[in-house]
Amino acid sequence: MVTATENTTARVLARCHTLAGFSEDREGTRRTFLSPPMRDCHNEIAKWLAPLGVNVGVDAAGNLRGLYPGATPDAPRLLIGSHLDTVPNAGAYDGILGVTLAVALLEALEGRRLPFAIEVLGLSEEEGVRFGVPFIGSRALVGRLDEELLNRRDANGITVRAAIEAFGLRPGEIPQAILPAEVLGYFEFHIEQGPALEDLGFPLGAVEAIAGQSRLEFTFTGRANHAGTTPMHLRYDSLAAAAEWIVAVEKYAGEVPGLAATVGVIDAKPGATNCIAGQTRASLDARHASDEVRHAAIDSLIRRAEEIAARRELTVGTRTLFDQRAVLMDPYLVEQVARAMREIGCEPHRMVSGAGHDAMILAQRVPAAMIFLRTPGGISHHPSETAQPGDISKAIECGLQLLKQLGESSDFRMRTQRA
Amino acid sequence: MVTATENTTARVLARCHTLAGFSEDREGTRRTFLSPPMRDCHNEIAKWLAPLGVNVGVDAAGNLRGLYPGATPDAPRLLIGSHLDTVPNAGAYDGILGVTLAVALLEALEGRRLPFAIEVLGLSEEEGVRFGVPFIGSRALVGRLDEELLNRRDANGITVRAAIEAFGLRPGEIPQAILPAEVLGYFEFHIEQGPALEDLGFPLGAVEAIAGQSRLEFTFTGRANHAGTTPMHLRYDSLAAAAEWIVAVEKYAGEVPGLAATVGVIDAKPGATNCIAGQTRASLDARHASDEVRHAAIDSLIRRAEEIAARRELTVGTRTLFDQRAVLMDPYLVEQVARAMREIGCEPHRMVSGAGHDAMILAQRVPAAMIFLRTPGGISHHPSETAQPGDISKAIECGLQLLKQLGESSDFRMRTQRA
Repeated sequence: MVTATENTTARVLARCHTLAGFSEDREGTRRTFLSPPMRDCHNEIAKWLAPLGVNVGVDAAGNLRGLYPGATPDAPRLLIGSHLDTVPNAGAYDGILGVTLAVALLEALEGRRLPFAIEVLGLSEEEGVRFGVPFIGSRALVGRLDEELLNRRDANGITVRAAIEAFGLRPGEIPQAILPAEVLGYFEFHIEQGPALEDLGFPLGAVEAIAGQSRLEFTFTGRANHAGTTPMHLRYDSLAAAAEWIVAVEKYAGEVPGLAATVGVIDAKPGATNCIAGQTRASLDARHASDEVRHAAIDSLIRRAEEIAARRELTVGTRTLFDQRAVLMDPYLVEQVARAMREIGCEPHRMVSGAGHDAMILAQRVPAAMIFLRTPGGISHHPSETAQPGDISKAIECGLQLLKQLGESSDFRMRTQRA
Repeated sequence: MVTATENTTARVLARCHTLAGFSEDREGTRRTFLSPPMRDCHNEIAKWLAPLGVNVGVDAAGNLRGLYPGATPDAPRLLIGSHLDTVPNAGAYDGILGVTLAVALLEALEGRRLPFAIEVLGLSEEEGVRFGVPFIGSRALVGRLDEELLNRRDANGITVRAAIEAFGLRPGEIPQAILPAEVLGYFEFHIEQGPALEDLGFPLGAVEAIAGQSRLEFTFTGRANHAGTTPMHLRYDSLAAAAEWIVAVEKYAGEVPGLAATVGVIDAKPGATNCIAGQTRASLDARHASDEVRHAAIDSLIRRAEEIAARRELTVGTRTLFDQRAVLMDPYLVEQVARAMREIGCEPHRMVSGAGHDAMILAQRVPAAMIFLRTPGGISHHPSETAQPGDISKAIECGLQLLKQLGESSDFRMRTQRA
């Protein structure tokens, strides 16, 4: 069994906080796509990797890439990494921890060569803050950084393309960033950003799928009327109808294992204390690892809204804003992760990620898997985001065990040949 | 039995529309407290009353007042009227109809003198649009136009006092507007502004009380969290809690006769599709003719919110913004109205006004009663506000019958002596 030293863990934590200091804002961390502090971030990571003989480059989409060679010059590649951009007022771990852990794993190899090369990825953009569209970095790696995306503008009118040029990179070289066919796989360590592992008391989780996601808008239309002069039985109250539906959404989701359904936005018009609401808009966010279950949920919740509206003699309209399929992680790699977790004495807990991650994009082209770290309080996207040192040690041990398993596995080499 | 001619009714309707033309806005009707079109309105009404020998004055609070003498010089006064101000984008009937009906009743007397004088009131302010506080006109008549109110400012920084002076009136003479003790009573015809009479198929209603009103704000506080990464059983969803409570409010009100309870304002924070709402604010407007029933309802709905919050491990805070007691109309006058309705062949339907009216203020000093006219669709405060000619005829007949009854009644004269 492999173990992580306290030193290694402390270094990972310290490095996360060093990177958190590279910020666009004087107070707090904000580091968006190819903003000036991203260069400091790249330089810092390059300093960590240089002693390992890893030369760091930045591809045309702004992704930091550093190759730790394999036992043979033609060895295929395994990717390990996460994203380097942050939300505004961010914590120190979201994304960053996955990159610092990748570096720590290479360091822990102490120069040993494996039957595959390991490429550290520090992806340029996952949060969607600057351009309103996430995954710019990982999209480039799978050949999906298209013209439309390159022409999107940030709040200052600067396009993605212009931002790439301003950073000294060449948009024309984006196709060269695409991953070659012989890539073995991609592992991403990431904080869970939710309370499930903490609730179960597990340090790590093996992500077996990224939930598919629907976003809809429901509009209940009744009749605005005077709150004093309209008797209860003569009302067509759109907010009361929406409230009844919100209760039904919560109840439905509570009864379907793994389903998350949320109404987070509500707007009642005219929105006066003494007025019955004539029109109420409410959002629905529904996620599940099975697209079938998710679509059945959406259908059922639309029907429920229609029943409620019909009984109350109101109308309801629905609009689908977003429908993203679930993405399965590679079953072989997930099994290897679970085995590694078992080997280091962790419960091999399998789970579904309710949030999107780069692994979901890279899975379009390479076998991908994710390992979640317990997130105290489920708190993320906030300076109080943390990760426990003990859990970081477990993650390092899990990663090393995984590399050991894969290095020894003939199955894994078989996959190489298939790829 | 008295009857209203088609001509009389047509004239009332035409006059309502004439007054609707006196507006601060080029499009639509808006006539706020002592705005320039209010002078045109006064002049127009004065023209209608002059042939009846009624001289019109404007008191220091901007109320139009015209006295139709009684049979003797010392006859006590009966007041009939309503308000002349409007909301923005108003209909032609709210308030105005009560004044044009008062004029029509005097015309229909064809010079006959009654044992009491009749004072037509065209009250200056009921809607609260210009200064954010309603009932400026009727407050003056009961001696409650105080310094604080006189110093309130409109959106342009003009005080009530300055507005009175700008109209050529003298704030120092406001005490002279106070009604003398020997006033017999006040009748106000007003459109219902609700759907109850239409629903019952009745043209008129005898208002026996103005509902008391509570306004509260409820704040449910849970925990904002990621809609994708937070399993249903680990949520503290403030919007789901508020929704459960809104359903309970509606159910409770539906089970208590005469109670109107409305949640018209809702605000969920952070208010993002992919975020569980950490805090949700909701308003409560509750009205009932009995203050006891209303307060019991408020207590019960606060308890209900607390139960819901406690079960979900959330907190809820409540804040009372407004608590206005119910006002009973004068039982003798209400009985006389009901009798008059019966005499002209109308169902003597008694009802509670869910909205505030000048009669509520004047009742502090004089016996008051109101007669509601059916409001098609319950629509008011909108250009599509209407009143049916047949209902206006019934209102005139009811008013004339009422004057006949009161003129013949020794009880009514007895009340004079008591007053």
